[in-house]
Amino acid sequence: MRLLRRSAPTKDKKRVVILGGGFAGLYTARYLERALGRRGDFEVVLVNKENYFVFQPMLAEVVSGAVGVTDAVSPIRRLLPRTELHVREVESVDLKARTVTTAPGFQPHPHVLRYDHLVLALGNVTDFRGLRGLPEHALPFKNLGDALRLRNHVIHALEEAAIEEDYELRRRLLTFVVAGGGFSGVEVVAELNDFVREAARSYRQLNESDIRVVLLHAGARILPEVTERLGLFAQKVLRRRKVEIHLNTRLRAATGTEAILQDGRRIPTRTLVSTVPSSPHPIVESLDLPRNEAGRLLANSFLEVEGAEGLWALGDNALVPLAGGRGSSPPTAQHAIRQARAAAHNIVASIRGGERRAFDFKDLGKMGALGHRSAVAEVLGVPVSGLPAWLLWRAVYLMKLPGWGRRLRVAASWALDVLLPAELAQLKLDDSVKLAREHFEPGEEVFVQGDLGDRVYIITKGRAEVLRQEGGRTLRLAELGPGEYFGEMAVLGDTTRNATVRSVEALDVVALPKREFMLVTSNLPDARQRFGEVIRRRRRATALAFGQRA
Amino acid sequence: MRLLRRSAPTKDKKRVVILGGGFAGLYTARYLERALGRRGDFEVVLVNKENYFVFQPMLAEVVSGAVGVTDAVSPIRRLLPRTELHVREVESVDLKARTVTTAPGFQPHPHVLRYDHLVLALGNVTDFRGLRGLPEHALPFKNLGDALRLRNHVIHALEEAAIEEDYELRRRLLTFVVAGGGFSGVEVVAELNDFVREAARSYRQLNESDIRVVLLHAGARILPEVTERLGLFAQKVLRRRKVEIHLNTRLRAATGTEAILQDGRRIPTRTLVSTVPSSPHPIVESLDLPRNEAGRLLANSFLEVEGAEGLWALGDNALVPLAGGRGSSPPTAQHAIRQARAAAHNIVASIRGGERRAFDFKDLGKMGALGHRSAVAEVLGVPVSGLPAWLLWRAVYLMKLPGWGRRLRVAASWALDVLLPAELAQLKLDDSVKLAREHFEPGEEVFVQGDLGDRVYIITKGRAEVLRQEGGRTLRLAELGPGEYFGEMAVLGDTTRNATVRSVEALDVVALPKREFMLVTSNLPDARQRFGEVIRRRRRATALAFGQRA
Repeated sequence: MRLLRRSAPTKDKKRVVILGGGFAGLYTARYLERALGRRGDFEVVLVNKENYFVFQPMLAEVVSGAVGVTDAVSPIRRLLPRTELHVREVESVDLKARTVTTAPGFQPHPHVLRYDHLVLALGNVTDFRGLRGLPEHALPFKNLGDALRLRNHVIHALEEAAIEEDYELRRRLLTFVVAGGGFSGVEVVAELNDFVREAARSYRQLNESDIRVVLLHAGARILPEVTERLGLFAQKVLRRRKVEIHLNTRLRAATGTEAILQDGRRIPTRTLVSTVPSSPHPIVESLDLPRNEAGRLLANSFLEVEGAEGLWALGDNALVPLAGGRGSSPPTAQHAIRQARAAAHNIVASIRGGERRAFDFKDLGKMGALGHRSAVAEVLGVPVSGLPAWLLWRAVYLMKLPGWGRRLRVAASWALDVLLPAELAQLKLDDSVKLAREHFEPGEEVFVQGDLGDRVYIITKGRAEVLRQEGGRTLRLAELGPGEYFGEMAVLGDTTRNATVRSVEALDVVALPKREFMLVTSNLPDARQRFGEVIRRRRRATALAFGQRA
Repeated sequence: MRLLRRSAPTKDKKRVVILGGGFAGLYTARYLERALGRRGDFEVVLVNKENYFVFQPMLAEVVSGAVGVTDAVSPIRRLLPRTELHVREVESVDLKARTVTTAPGFQPHPHVLRYDHLVLALGNVTDFRGLRGLPEHALPFKNLGDALRLRNHVIHALEEAAIEEDYELRRRLLTFVVAGGGFSGVEVVAELNDFVREAARSYRQLNESDIRVVLLHAGARILPEVTERLGLFAQKVLRRRKVEIHLNTRLRAATGTEAILQDGRRIPTRTLVSTVPSSPHPIVESLDLPRNEAGRLLANSFLEVEGAEGLWALGDNALVPLAGGRGSSPPTAQHAIRQARAAAHNIVASIRGGERRAFDFKDLGKMGALGHRSAVAEVLGVPVSGLPAWLLWRAVYLMKLPGWGRRLRVAASWALDVLLPAELAQLKLDDSVKLAREHFEPGEEVFVQGDLGDRVYIITKGRAEVLRQEGGRTLRLAELGPGEYFGEMAVLGDTTRNATVRSVEALDVVALPKREFMLVTSNLPDARQRFGEVIRRRRRATALAFGQRA
């Protein structure tokens, strides 16, 4: 057995480890590769949980199918031929020992990477903590997986709506809610709106007028990133395309069937996308380093974390000052790329000796697509909107895509998109067994007597009541709390629910498909026996309540 | 609340319900739509678990990325504008009541569809039952999900191999085994081989010579569907491209790390694809109808199930006689399409009155792609091979693709594929929580002392022993059986395994990630307490075994 110890840096060579393969991390590696030349006096390792770089501005187009499934991403190996790529999650960072540990892959052993310089470019993550029901029911929109999941979810909703007989339930399936009116939310809602309205034409049972697409925004106008004029223009364009825009509106909670607003209004929906809020990557949170109150690492103008030699921070997980007291660098791709250039220069200066360079940059402009041949942009302070802005958007982003192959593919997709109707295939990639977590607001029904029962619920938080109707009477059979389960009759082969379960207070449950519930519980010590007892007791209670024989 | 009762047939209209949207089902609906004309005297409902039709012959190209992710499928709604499509699993069929029940979707209620004519075109399913370890570890290859999963799995294996330091483990990650040397298996192994060998060039740490691609086939030569000459030609082509072909070889069992052959040989691998064996769809199995010993429904030459009026069977789930005692129709797309035409004609004849037509057809030819610009074909009895066969393959299948839009997309993908390197993005669609089932052969290690522990195992079958090494001594701490679990120390925050667990006899386990194990067990009655006791007992046993304080 030959062991190659690749994880220790080659003798004499300095090793730069970069965490994160977004704009900041990827471009740092690119500029380092460029500086490396033939000298080979250092090596670059990039750790990213995906093997591709996501071209964020194009992600929304994956939802509508305007670009192909893999068009918005580029394989990192092709972009960084001289960098060692580790496709793994970062498990921990030890600042004292100067090591990074990555989570195990196929093999259960972790990798420990020694570093001389560490670049923290982990970006931020969508963080629904503290928002009731959002972790369970809101769809985030950050990476390619999110975009594909959203796309599939929307197609699934259309398919279900097409065969749903109940009008209210159909309307609910046809209501799509996006929370967050920044660039990301606006691009998603625009593409989503175009997609569902076009796709609906292929469903002869669906009426386009039954479709609702809703944008929720906390501020007084959408797109706070651009001038008021452009923001209002975007609002007008979206409204003309029948997007309902609710301003000064925040999401308070969510269930599987409703979006609940701060003011108590409820929007019945099966599809809730939230692009807010975001918080720093958990690894950044775990480090004992100076941060601002939003959790961003405090870097100096050389991109080094103040007081920590050989530790660099840039991109969305860092707060980088701009020259002349102009505040800090906004979290945009343009800034991340310029920060990367400065960071790479300064890292090389640290290794080889030489002068460091302070980061400074002024925005060239901002752009946001509004779908269907419209966009808004500000270029060097000049506002552009409508078709010219859309053409500009496509031209600029096509050229910004890394690599000619990618540009060719995207251009081909765009050309076909003009010619052909939207792709409708629902990609179900994973058919593996799932534990679903669900949230219910007080008074909501988990299931109704007579429904088809295919899963078992375990209460993790809150309380629920079990109600049974028989001969016109409704009886409250039990109240259940954390640690108790219900719906287990389905396991015994009863196919329809023999009672209704309704939450008494905000309720969190874990739902297990029938087969998996059996698999887990029947093999746990005592669970099988206990389980049988509970069922017998409940059957007895039901029988007694209705005056039948036990 | 307005209720639209769409599931009952419109008054006076006969309803034809088709189960399955493969070649047989899709084309039956197409021919029925054509016959419908303006008369509208019947309606057509198609039930399929996906909203798209899979163009099976192109599926292998999805693995290599020669066509785009959605290029090998077509949305059924576009192909069948006048058919009502239900995208659901079939739950049951009631032949007496003449109803079909579909499984619930977003809503927990099922749909019940009445029918006058029922077309059974459910095809067959990959069936690993009875093959030890295959349900847990072999990847099937039947639908789009399978193709994408295989693609991702292969890319994941390459990524892990690129950072694996242990040579043996790296070789194992770079070994890809395909079982089954029919058309399907050969097309998969050819595309897989092309893909991994091309992709490896983008991984600077990988050596192409370390890659093994293995084809296992039970017969004396591959491609039993074509003449011996073409079969041998295909063998030669694949071997020249470094595919190892093992003839007269069957798979006996599989674990997560090995393919085990009938003769006891073991091939260390992390990727095992099996295109065999297949069996009829479970719904077909559940019906009390005449079947042959392979489980295929016995249809007469009118495609009607013998003795069951209004019940039709065609495609791979049926055995359809050929005229003149020439045996039965082989399970190919060509036959399915011609059967569909006859079935549609006969259904219309049953509804409107008119003469039925007996099915008969003679094959036009057979084709199989060998990847990388080679193929084999037999056209009207004439054998063709190499580049001419490959061009023929592409031309014929391009024209056979349903719809011009699809043809255009595929043609564009093929053109780009010639120009550009292979796509490498690993699509992780689903990040939801999973219960994994795993199989271990006797003597195999589940994990090794010192490994990183991130999951808990519950034994569902078989026995395992717990071994601990300390100061040069190895002690057998315990033997565990069904219903017992191990690896739970990880739950308490120990990050590395403090013992080795090895199977004593063939072992089946359910593996749960740490977090989910807590979620389920900590909420089950008594489980938490029992769990604590087990841990305390095991800690004590360990301490005593090594003569330490408890």
